[in-house]
Formats: sequence, C-alpha cells, structure tokens
Amino acid sequence: MARKILILTEGLTSPHSAKTACSVIRYRRDEVVGVLDTTVPPQPCQALLEVGGDLPVVNSLDALPGANVLLIGIAPTGGTLPAPMRALVLGAIERGLDVESGLHEFLNDDAEFAAAARATGSTLRDLRRNNERDVAKRQNISADCLRIHTVGHDCSVGKMVVSIEVARGLARRGADAKFIATGQTGMLVEGDGCPVDAVVADFISGAVEKLILEHQHHEVLVIEGQGSLTHPCYSAVTLGLLHGCLPDGLIYCYEMGRNMAKGANHIELPTMESQRELYLAMANTAHPCRFIGVAINSRCAEEAAYRAERDRIESEWNLPACDVFRENPEPLVDAVLEMLKD
Amino acid sequence: MARKILILTEGLTSPHSAKTACSVIRYRRDEVVGVLDTTVPPQPCQALLEVGGDLPVVNSLDALPGANVLLIGIAPTGGTLPAPMRALVLGAIERGLDVESGLHEFLNDDAEFAAAARATGSTLRDLRRNNERDVAKRQNISADCLRIHTVGHDCSVGKMVVSIEVARGLARRGADAKFIATGQTGMLVEGDGCPVDAVVADFISGAVEKLILEHQHHEVLVIEGQGSLTHPCYSAVTLGLLHGCLPDGLIYCYEMGRNMAKGANHIELPTMESQRELYLAMANTAHPCRFIGVAINSRCAEEAAYRAERDRIESEWNLPACDVFRENPEPLVDAVLEMLKD
Repeated sequence: MARKILILTEGLTSPHSAKTACSVIRYRRDEVVGVLDTTVPPQPCQALLEVGGDLPVVNSLDALPGANVLLIGIAPTGGTLPAPMRALVLGAIERGLDVESGLHEFLNDDAEFAAAARATGSTLRDLRRNNERDVAKRQNISADCLRIHTVGHDCSVGKMVVSIEVARGLARRGADAKFIATGQTGMLVEGDGCPVDAVVADFISGAVEKLILEHQHHEVLVIEGQGSLTHPCYSAVTLGLLHGCLPDGLIYCYEMGRNMAKGANHIELPTMESQRELYLAMANTAHPCRFIGVAINSRCAEEAAYRAERDRIESEWNLPACDVFRENPEPLVDAVLEMLKD
Repeated sequence: MARKILILTEGLTSPHSAKTACSVIRYRRDEVVGVLDTTVPPQPCQALLEVGGDLPVVNSLDALPGANVLLIGIAPTGGTLPAPMRALVLGAIERGLDVESGLHEFLNDDAEFAAAARATGSTLRDLRRNNERDVAKRQNISADCLRIHTVGHDCSVGKMVVSIEVARGLARRGADAKFIATGQTGMLVEGDGCPVDAVVADFISGAVEKLILEHQHHEVLVIEGQGSLTHPCYSAVTLGLLHGCLPDGLIYCYEMGRNMAKGANHIELPTMESQRELYLAMANTAHPCRFIGVAINSRCAEEAAYRAERDRIESEWNLPACDVFRENPEPLVDAVLEMLKD
C-alpha cells in the first residue's frame, strides 16, 4: 500500500524546530498528505515551514482520513516525545495508522503505545532502534570509491541537505553517486542508512564502516555528517563518524551569523579556521583527506551579505563556496568531479 | 553476605587477555576466592596472571564451593561471551551463584541464562547495562575541583591502573581525591562509575558530565581514560569522555615498544608527539588544559631500557614520567599536588 504520511509537529511547526518534517516534505513530497498541529489554524504548510506549498496543515487527526502513517516530525535534543504529542500518537494508533519515530525514546518500549498497536494492528517503527555490535576493522575499504563527507561548524547547519544536493547534483552530471544517510531524517529520505547517534558508543565507527563496505560499489559516496568536533554534546558522534567513513574529501558546512552552539547557547563556537585545522588533523590520522568546498547556509542573510561572504570564503579558503538552496550545488559538484578525475 | 568471587577466564588466563581478572585480583583481592579455567591444571594464580600470589586457579566449578559470585574476567573486543564460557556460566547459575559481567552482550537478555536464574534465584548483573539519556550541558562545573584525566597512545596501556594509583597516592598524601571509573573493570574496583563505551553515542559526554557533577565536592577527581583519539574502533568514546570530563590536567599513558593499534594490528600508531598535539587541541576547545605527566607502561622492557626511556621522555616532554608499578606513582602525584597549589 502506498504510504500516505501525516507529519506530526504539534506546537513546533517552524523550520528550526521541525527539521525532520521540512526535509521529508522537501524530498518525499509525493508521500506526504499533510501536517498535524492542533495549536494553529488550518493553513497551507508554506507559511509555517517555508516549504511544501499548499500542503495542508490540519488541526485534527480526522481531517485527512486517507493518511496511513503518522510521522513524528521533530528531532529534539535528548530525543524524547514532547508531552503534547502523546495523545495524538495514541489517537493515530487507535485509528489504525502506523507510527514512525526518529526519537531516542522508542515507541515500542512504551507499554500504552505497544498495547494500543497490538489492538489495532498498527506498526510502530523506531528509526533509531539498532543493534550495532561490530567494531571498525579498517580493512577492505575500496580505493575505487570516492568518499565525500560533510562536516560542520555546529549541529543543524544543513549537512544533510548539502549531502543530498551534492549526491543528486553528481547523479545529474552522470556520476554514480549515492547519499549515505547517518541520521533518522536522512534515512526517511533515502530509504536506508544508519542512525549513528543512537549506536552504542563502542560501535559507532564500526556501524559507519559497514555502510561504506555495503555501498562502495558506487563511484562516489556522499556521507551525511552529524554534530561537530567541538559541540559540547555530540563531538563523540562526529568523530566516530569521521573515523568510520574515512573520507577522501570534506565539505565544510556552516550557517552565516551563528556564533553560539545550538542547544548550548552559552558556548561560543570556535573560529572556522581553527575548526578546519581540527577536522583535518583528526581525519588525516585515519586516511589522507582534504577540504574540497564550503557550503554556506545563508537562510538569515540578505542577498548582498551572502554574496560578500561567499566571495570572502572562496578567497580566504581557496575553495569553491555556495549556498546550495540560494544558488545551486554545482560549485561543490564540480569539486567532487575534479577529485574523480585525479 | 560477603562477596566471594570466583573469576572466570576460561582459556584466556593471561595478563593481556584477562585484564578484568587481573585488576579485580590486584585491587579487590580480599573478595576473590579463585580463578576458574578448565583448560589448565590447578595452580597458583601468580604463574599465569602475574598477580594474585597463591590465589588458586581451579578447573571445576565445584572446587571452591564457598564462592557466591561468578565474575566474567575478560573484556574482549566486541564484548560477546566466548562460546567455551557458556556452559560454565550456566553451571554457576544452576549452583545458585550470582553472575557478574562487563560484556556488551547482556546476560539478562539471554533467554537460557535468564530462565536458569529465575529457577535458582541467582542475580545476573550486567555492568555495562545503562539507560543514559542526558546530553552534556557544560554548566555548574565547579572551578574548585581539579580534574585530572588519563589519556593514551592506544587502548590497554594502563590508563585505569594509573588513574587508581594516582588517586590512591594523592589520598596517601592527604588530598581528598577520588578515582572516577569509566569502564566495567574500574567500576568493579571502585564500586561506582559509568560504563561510558556502552552508552548510546549521543549521550556519552552527558553521562560523563553527570559523574563529574556528582563527585565534584572532592578536591581532585582522577578520571579513567578509554581508548585513544586515534584508535580505529574507539576514538568516539575517547573524545566523548574528554569533552564530558573537561580536564584541567592530562596524564599521557603509553606502553614501551607498542607500535601497532591493539585489536587492529595493521594500523600503525601515530607518533606520541603528534598525538599529544591532537589531545591538547581537542581538549582545549572545551576547557583550558595541559599535560602534567607521562605514565610509562614498561612491562615488556628491561630495567636499563626503562630508565633510559624515562629519562628521555622527561627531558623531551619536560614533564615527570614514571612506571607506576615498576617504581611508584609519586612523580605524577607530585605533579597533581603542584596543580592544586596554583
């Protein structure tokens, strides 16, 4: 049966707080029938999420009876279900909808949800549930597959989007490229991948290495980055991923105007230049690696400020730079194609 | 009831493969009644483990009927139970012994073990089981508590032992020092701590931070390191721990003669000097930090070679250096006491 997804963003229907919803609408638009938020009047999605056009935001589970999947459209720090969503999830299960969640707190471990699902035959899918138990071996890595990895100044700067756009741009130019999803939203977009931040710490590099080995028959892999090497919460995930995927090329991603760490507003971000050196040092202990481009997230900037920033970065870093949405990913795609020629 | 521990090392009764056994015998000797290995003749423990004196190695569960706990005395890569141990664990449960395990594979998740334990009333304790779900906040960290952290060239170089010896040395000199255990063996020795390599990756720094907040009423915390920043399998654990405990001072630990990564014998270890710079760079993004000493593991070296190495390191690193067993931890203890004065 075709998936008809209703995305739950209760009380959090904004581009920053409903990242998962925005990306699924952007990249899986044909499967989405609407967005559920009982705290706002029914309206087109575009006004609230800056994506989705006239896709309806509805305020009742009964407004879109054709939906067969309720997707929890947020990914909060800590990964627990916000209390106001609980009754709506239960209501969806009682109506027989499947429920999909990328939270750290698993739907299947909730006795009330599990009992309701047994009663109605609903399936509860926990995207972050995994049983990864392999350490990295760093063997049998193909030299014929180019590995590109997005890393960032902070979390939530657009590493997933840049990875998808570069992989799709490469495909448009005839390269055999695959996006490697490493988080729940990327997995929803791509249909495969691994929720690396939910893997037991000893096995994170091993889980990433398995993804690489599985897909290295492709010409290029574009591997989604997570967090940052200096984020107070998530640096372990970032390094486990970096050392698990052994990139040949890195794309540095940042948001213009971001000065403080997301989720830790008292922590100043390091300079981009110092961070670039940390990434290079840590990556090169495992595999020869260099930066090949910079992805600028300019969502809060005026056009002129963006253009000045792009020119400055291109000149100071001596690398192509662009906002993949405001312009297009071609400068980064070109940089990858250049590496393929080497 | 007093714990009378029988340590299971079946077929692996050597200092390298039975690390957990050796440390529990070294630091909890009064609770241990023997070592179980059915593959070797009964003999004193010292001959096989280089520790324990005349503590008996026995070849049957029935040899020491007073034992009330079977402890799995190994910590293999991947953390699964070796097949030859299975029947002995089951036999122990059937005899009513409690079983303690630091493996990643949990005894309580094994249907056969769980059923047997229900039948006899045995308790199965999985030391690595945890439900850590807090991200790091990097707030309310006391400036009055000095944090010392052991880091290393590789895994299994003696970071736990150095941490314990320095903490005990500080206590002997009148400082209020506590050893912070971050692995299952350290937890067995200290009676508290957190198995950080078994925490879900997103929460490793948060779990470590909780340990710090809980114990920062002490004057000094000596926090056990794990893995290394360049180990192919475990670098994520190392960085999550480093960024979670925010050390003021680092002790660099290495084994003389070790050139290849443990568990990944095809991977060359980086130079100690390059690794020192990586540790400093990564630690200082989070909190001002410097090296205060070097711990040399010289177990495979002759005395003259050790002395030459110690003198070379002290001169080249301009730091006190010692093997805490071959000599004593006093040079490192002195370095911590110096920091306390500052």
